[in-house]
Amino acid sequence: MANKYAIGIDFGTESARAVLVRLSDGAELASAVSPYADGVIDETLPGSGIRLEPDWALQNPMDYVTAVKETVPKVLAASGVSANDVIGIGIDFTACTMLPTKADGTPLCVLPAYRDNPHAWVKLWKHHAAQPEANKLNRLAEERGETWLARYGGKISSEWFFPKALQILDEAPEIYDAADRLIEAADWVVWQLTGVETRNSCTAGYKAIWSKEEGFPSPDFFAALHPRMRNIVQEKMQEDIKPLGARAGGLTAEMAAATGLLPGTAVAVANVDAHVAVPAATVTSTGRMVMIMGTSICHMVVGQQPRIVPGMCGVVEDGILPNLAGFEAGQSAVGDIFAWFVDHCVPAEYQQEAAERGLNLHQLLEEKASTLQVGESGLLALDWWNGNRSVLVDVDLTGLLLGATLATRAEEIYRALIEATAFGTRMIIEAFRSNGVPVDDLVAAGGLPERNRLFMQIYADVTGQEIKVVASTQAGALGSAMHGAVAAGAAAGGFDSIEEAAAQMAHLRDDTFKPNAENHAVYNELYQEYVRLHDYFGRGENDVMKRLKAIRARALSA
Amino acid sequence: MANKYAIGIDFGTESARAVLVRLSDGAELASAVSPYADGVIDETLPGSGIRLEPDWALQNPMDYVTAVKETVPKVLAASGVSANDVIGIGIDFTACTMLPTKADGTPLCVLPAYRDNPHAWVKLWKHHAAQPEANKLNRLAEERGETWLARYGGKISSEWFFPKALQILDEAPEIYDAADRLIEAADWVVWQLTGVETRNSCTAGYKAIWSKEEGFPSPDFFAALHPRMRNIVQEKMQEDIKPLGARAGGLTAEMAAATGLLPGTAVAVANVDAHVAVPAATVTSTGRMVMIMGTSICHMVVGQQPRIVPGMCGVVEDGILPNLAGFEAGQSAVGDIFAWFVDHCVPAEYQQEAAERGLNLHQLLEEKASTLQVGESGLLALDWWNGNRSVLVDVDLTGLLLGATLATRAEEIYRALIEATAFGTRMIIEAFRSNGVPVDDLVAAGGLPERNRLFMQIYADVTGQEIKVVASTQAGALGSAMHGAVAAGAAAGGFDSIEEAAAQMAHLRDDTFKPNAENHAVYNELYQEYVRLHDYFGRGENDVMKRLKAIRARALSA
Repeated sequence: MANKYAIGIDFGTESARAVLVRLSDGAELASAVSPYADGVIDETLPGSGIRLEPDWALQNPMDYVTAVKETVPKVLAASGVSANDVIGIGIDFTACTMLPTKADGTPLCVLPAYRDNPHAWVKLWKHHAAQPEANKLNRLAEERGETWLARYGGKISSEWFFPKALQILDEAPEIYDAADRLIEAADWVVWQLTGVETRNSCTAGYKAIWSKEEGFPSPDFFAALHPRMRNIVQEKMQEDIKPLGARAGGLTAEMAAATGLLPGTAVAVANVDAHVAVPAATVTSTGRMVMIMGTSICHMVVGQQPRIVPGMCGVVEDGILPNLAGFEAGQSAVGDIFAWFVDHCVPAEYQQEAAERGLNLHQLLEEKASTLQVGESGLLALDWWNGNRSVLVDVDLTGLLLGATLATRAEEIYRALIEATAFGTRMIIEAFRSNGVPVDDLVAAGGLPERNRLFMQIYADVTGQEIKVVASTQAGALGSAMHGAVAAGAAAGGFDSIEEAAAQMAHLRDDTFKPNAENHAVYNELYQEYVRLHDYFGRGENDVMKRLKAIRARALSA
Repeated sequence: MANKYAIGIDFGTESARAVLVRLSDGAELASAVSPYADGVIDETLPGSGIRLEPDWALQNPMDYVTAVKETVPKVLAASGVSANDVIGIGIDFTACTMLPTKADGTPLCVLPAYRDNPHAWVKLWKHHAAQPEANKLNRLAEERGETWLARYGGKISSEWFFPKALQILDEAPEIYDAADRLIEAADWVVWQLTGVETRNSCTAGYKAIWSKEEGFPSPDFFAALHPRMRNIVQEKMQEDIKPLGARAGGLTAEMAAATGLLPGTAVAVANVDAHVAVPAATVTSTGRMVMIMGTSICHMVVGQQPRIVPGMCGVVEDGILPNLAGFEAGQSAVGDIFAWFVDHCVPAEYQQEAAERGLNLHQLLEEKASTLQVGESGLLALDWWNGNRSVLVDVDLTGLLLGATLATRAEEIYRALIEATAFGTRMIIEAFRSNGVPVDDLVAAGGLPERNRLFMQIYADVTGQEIKVVASTQAGALGSAMHGAVAAGAAAGGFDSIEEAAAQMAHLRDDTFKPNAENHAVYNELYQEYVRLHDYFGRGENDVMKRLKAIRARALSA
């Protein structure tokens, strides 16, 4: 039997990447990237030049369609694979990235009547202007004792679906009215590929407060939030939520012509970039945590039962893998903290040395920091440069560095910052464990494991656990291709389950990061100190960070 | 009547500076600097090349004599003043800087039998290798309930006289035996000038646990510290302590020949560099605090009565001004913290901008930090990069920075560090006030008031008090010249008291730093947060800093 193939398309913040994958062994035969022409729209609106307010971040949905039409022909051509042998397509996306459309899927922002209104465009995941709406939603949910709140660590993020929807209604009711649909961009792209409107369980569950058992929040809740939102689900969404790996439909004739694929090629329902990487990291069963490690960290693990774990981002049945409860937690800044440090706190002589030796500053600092013994710096940090996502769920917490002396050097601070993020991950792991979600095994994916061995070794030493690393450097696109193969099904040469797909297509690297027992023992001591400071500053004993933020806000508004 | 003059010589860490001053108005007519040929000896012993252990810092006493012989002829020549009109000499010195000598004042380190022994040399103030001896002394004093301990904030520093003496006895008993005298370098230089051995009340009181009422610690205490130290005071010191401004003697014929001054010129007893600056800052009465602001800050104020103020460095009757109780407190790192920051935490782009604009990094950071509102950075620091001298008296405390975000910039941290040191000074002022020592008025001297206007304004805003600044940039040498004029006496054309000398010779600048009421109000809020963190980390609630230091020590010894 001839080899069969699937294409995964990973829609990131700045570009989309398609990868063509062989189903028999997961070999990635070709990949192609398409940067979005309008990129992240955070200053002025394309066409009109209308200025956006601070914290806005939009996108142009047509860039996503262009990306499909550009990248798929390229991977077909580069791999030399026949369209006859490509049996499935899957996509994954940033989330919650959402937009208003007409009933036929036409984005409002392409219609002349609406295109000069910022609210007609795609609100990107990092659009942070819906914080007042999120605050209102959270207060109301607490007052009403909404049971779903606990599934999200007690707080709905301003990045998620309903705060963004409410912002449209608050600030541009005409757009809210004109929108027949409010939809995740992920689902919208699948709609463009298939002509069929679907909703995937992952974004619905993690971003739109949906659960398999309870559905969406009640009309009464929405009505209390805003009278005109009472029937938002019935009016502007879809209650038929599809599990991951399900077939959304077949490729339309138009998209087939544009891409060179066959009409009717199976298209899987959409997925989220982090979550789709879980099976791509070989993980299809309970107890194995996948960490996507980059600017931030996303921690995912599945369990037999939904459980309430304080401070997690969400628990969703079918959210990561079918018929299992998917748990997500996260750290809001990890690589971002190291990048901040390198940009703003490293002296010129280090820049010079790095330049002379052909290293970047991260490499130089990693090299210098690697020579330090555990505990030698005398430093301890709280990794809250961008607040704390899990387990405190508090954006108003800030970073702390303790233990500085006149002998403290940049590489010591760099290492202390890495260690602080590792302590943050350990805290998350322990929160899962102590609330009945086993975490026996760690698998890493993302950019940082590729780039920084010290970072990975510190995580192994701090957690005391071996860390395996995903073999693919495109775990998102690989995972999407795997879901495409599942959507096609075994009868077509694909797979009938994600487990089967993972068994064939997903791999780990041979080399792993093993904890050093001596280092782990010292880190146990340091971790106790971290926990104490974490609780002192994070759980209300001394709210100095919030008071400083309030004083800062007053100073800036004066 | 012809103008009369005095010469003050300020012996610093790296060099000595002589200034020739007109008595009628304090005009500084000439100055000359002599760098010490052997500088700070902290690696190898001159001559033998013997390696020193870490934390050692020695000097060559002959460098001091050379400095006198080099600088005095220069100021005479440069000013055109006749030796006939120079009626007095005063000197001030770093302290405790001490050495072992024979009975005739010959330093042991110049004798062939001893010169290859590091303990035969001058132990400079920042020789920190006597910490075990200081620990032993403090433990014993606590156990025995020695009443003098409270006069020094509950702790004798390893920098002071008896820990250094005990280190000699512990590690080089043959040097201890050979030493007929253990003496402050300040007093030793006066001995060289006059041929008369004296001890001044300032170093005796602040560095050698002497008080006017109680004298030195008892022989029983010394015997408990080390049996052979029982009679250290009687055997190797002098119990006749001279008040400041007293005439030690007249210039010897030999020193007169070497300097061009007249034999018999009045020489005042020695003084300490910080303390001698108090009358040079016009302060001769109670309630006016003088702050010497440089790498560290020394806070001095006089009161009618000795009082116990927790965490001060010392209270000494006659220690600063005759017949008054002199109180000293301090911050162990101030300018040193800013220098650390500039050296180790400022990115290359700032260096480049500073170079392009012909500024140094301090100037650039000051300029950028000046544009920030109070509280705008959201940062708060504990200024313990070199421990806390007052009011916690704890070298094991370390620096803390809280409130960092991904938007934090170097100038914000720089400003937060300045603010932290200002909060530290406010804490000291409040400790004095709440223990019955009035502080109504602030006068600044030292290098920082010259260089950094933002620094001074922040101190005014944090304390809520106007800060006046000494007119002389050589307050140490000026104060020494004033004491020389007092040693000469009014009959010789000098003065009969330091008050009279100050009235003529000491001046303040016209421009002062006045507190901004709005800034002060915000700083009051920030100060409350500082106090809370100060007490939490500094008073035993969470000893994390000490535990990290212990872990660090273990890591380094592994």
